[in-house]
Amino acid sequence: MIEDKNQQRTPLSEYGEFGLIDHLTKNLKLNQQTTVKGIGDDAAVLDFKNKQVVVTTDMMVEGVHFDLSYVPLKHLGYKAVVVNISDVCAMNAKATQITVSIAVSNRFPVEALEELYAGIETAAKAYNVDVVGGDTTSSTKGLLISITAIGEVDAEKVVYRNQAKPKDLLVVSGDLGGAYMGLQVLEREKEVFKVNPQNQPDLSPYTYLIERQLKPEARKDIVELLEKLEVKPTSMIDISDGLSSEIIHLSSQSKVGCVLYENKIPIDPALISTCEEFDVDSTTVALNGGEDYELLFTISQDDFPKIKGNPNLTVIGYMEEEKEGLHLITRAETKIPIKAQGWKNFNG
Amino acid sequence: MIEDKNQQRTPLSEYGEFGLIDHLTKNLKLNQQTTVKGIGDDAAVLDFKNKQVVVTTDMMVEGVHFDLSYVPLKHLGYKAVVVNISDVCAMNAKATQITVSIAVSNRFPVEALEELYAGIETAAKAYNVDVVGGDTTSSTKGLLISITAIGEVDAEKVVYRNQAKPKDLLVVSGDLGGAYMGLQVLEREKEVFKVNPQNQPDLSPYTYLIERQLKPEARKDIVELLEKLEVKPTSMIDISDGLSSEIIHLSSQSKVGCVLYENKIPIDPALISTCEEFDVDSTTVALNGGEDYELLFTISQDDFPKIKGNPNLTVIGYMEEEKEGLHLITRAETKIPIKAQGWKNFNG
Repeated sequence: MIEDKNQQRTPLSEYGEFGLIDHLTKNLKLNQQTTVKGIGDDAAVLDFKNKQVVVTTDMMVEGVHFDLSYVPLKHLGYKAVVVNISDVCAMNAKATQITVSIAVSNRFPVEALEELYAGIETAAKAYNVDVVGGDTTSSTKGLLISITAIGEVDAEKVVYRNQAKPKDLLVVSGDLGGAYMGLQVLEREKEVFKVNPQNQPDLSPYTYLIERQLKPEARKDIVELLEKLEVKPTSMIDISDGLSSEIIHLSSQSKVGCVLYENKIPIDPALISTCEEFDVDSTTVALNGGEDYELLFTISQDDFPKIKGNPNLTVIGYMEEEKEGLHLITRAETKIPIKAQGWKNFNG
Repeated sequence: MIEDKNQQRTPLSEYGEFGLIDHLTKNLKLNQQTTVKGIGDDAAVLDFKNKQVVVTTDMMVEGVHFDLSYVPLKHLGYKAVVVNISDVCAMNAKATQITVSIAVSNRFPVEALEELYAGIETAAKAYNVDVVGGDTTSSTKGLLISITAIGEVDAEKVVYRNQAKPKDLLVVSGDLGGAYMGLQVLEREKEVFKVNPQNQPDLSPYTYLIERQLKPEARKDIVELLEKLEVKPTSMIDISDGLSSEIIHLSSQSKVGCVLYENKIPIDPALISTCEEFDVDSTTVALNGGEDYELLFTISQDDFPKIKGNPNLTVIGYMEEEKEGLHLITRAETKIPIKAQGWKNFNG
């Protein structure tokens, strides 16, 4: 689908391991004050002074988390960075460094890794993080990316998952379900392409959804906005596995219940029309789709005036006593239990 | 070779992704004062006060870095931790936390991952590091482990690769070449086993070498010893790719030359006898073997009295002006250039 048969193909074996890492990382610049030493020694050296440090790691595997028949390598590199930075944002912290490890089979030419690294570099610039380390090695099959992100935060500003209180408001950034429907569109086009490779599909109605899937963004801007508004969430998580699943995490770790209003869940018009076309329920998609990388958080009711009317934030419910359980109030005003149906990569 | 046909086999699909991580990490305890929050949130939270932080990451891939036909999973878990801690030691730092990411195909039962984690846990205890995060996901083929290690160090104690000076002494801990010959023994036994599975080999003459390969140790003790002796190396690196390769790294980054004496290279008697049996030159093995995870460092001549006679440390040469180049003085007193022949996983 995206393969260019005339592209240059330099075999990985032209570089040794060190040569390849040098080649791929030679353009990377260090911008973070906290980076004392980046790539080139046994370890990177960082200095956070009196700040606390957050660390998170995520792995993406070809054939499990992405399909290179429709995911451009540059986008993949970008997304692999973003999903980690999103976790840093969910701690109310500022991402500062990443390390990047890649395992890759000989079927990939050096040019493919250059594309991947171009995406990593673009994300690193966009989010102002330094690439301070990593490992590039061969694999027997496919491509795998493991990224560790590091961030800094004042001790008193860290937001955990377990401090939501009954009566706190449940708030989400952006809109939900788009990344999942973008994936459905891409999967459908892949099937069409298999049958008729000459077909040039018009994907313009799905631009927003496809972008949500291929080039998600971490909501660093929301962390900055909350700081400006002087709102410290009582709990926070990023939405990687779907709204239901993340609500369950926040609630169970905080030992609270929750009421979620279906008619408050923010959904883009493009999602509604595409869901109609695919004959799926947009609420189900928003609840279970995942990969939106929006932030889900709770705030004290006292803070509501500070966020009221902000177009980036939507109050979608409130927390309750634990014994009340977790419920969705549908548009028809029925009350149904919230269950997780997030992605289960080990199932099947 | 090590497979037990009667072992219990619980399919990975019995657990969801979160369930599996919970199951595997439920026994892990946090012991580090610097760990504020471990597994269970979007990211771990650490607090290093006024110390600097070192970060390093390493990936091990089945079929490239290890062969499960003779590497027990528990040893593999242990080694995956050790190789990262070794990098932290090479910065003259103290390892404090690790994150562990694992990609695994459905061919592995839960019990196999339990074994792997048992090894990780054993290493974490032995080196007093907390497992504070990670990711467990499925792969389309084989097993892959990516570990990031974090450590702390006083800013003035960090040792880089690039501060060696002409006339500094070149020192190595322990002995070299053992891990490589251990691998040769294991590879030979694998071939014998293929021909005659009933054969019960006597591996006792190779115990030391096999242990060097399967259960290497990071020289945390040397970092502590140097502190006690009040010796701060001028440069340091760990020996993962062979002595030649690491000497070249130290020298080129420090812009110095080097003289290495063949007759000073520390070699265990078991290595000599096994090299004779395999008809390979023990110096070649020590120079190029790799995976010994000893520390190679340079010290000012003024510090020599402090380390003199220590059985863990051997002076094997000295640094020169850059223009003099890198040379090995053989037992026959010929002077030959040092060339890297470290492991090149992309070659072939």
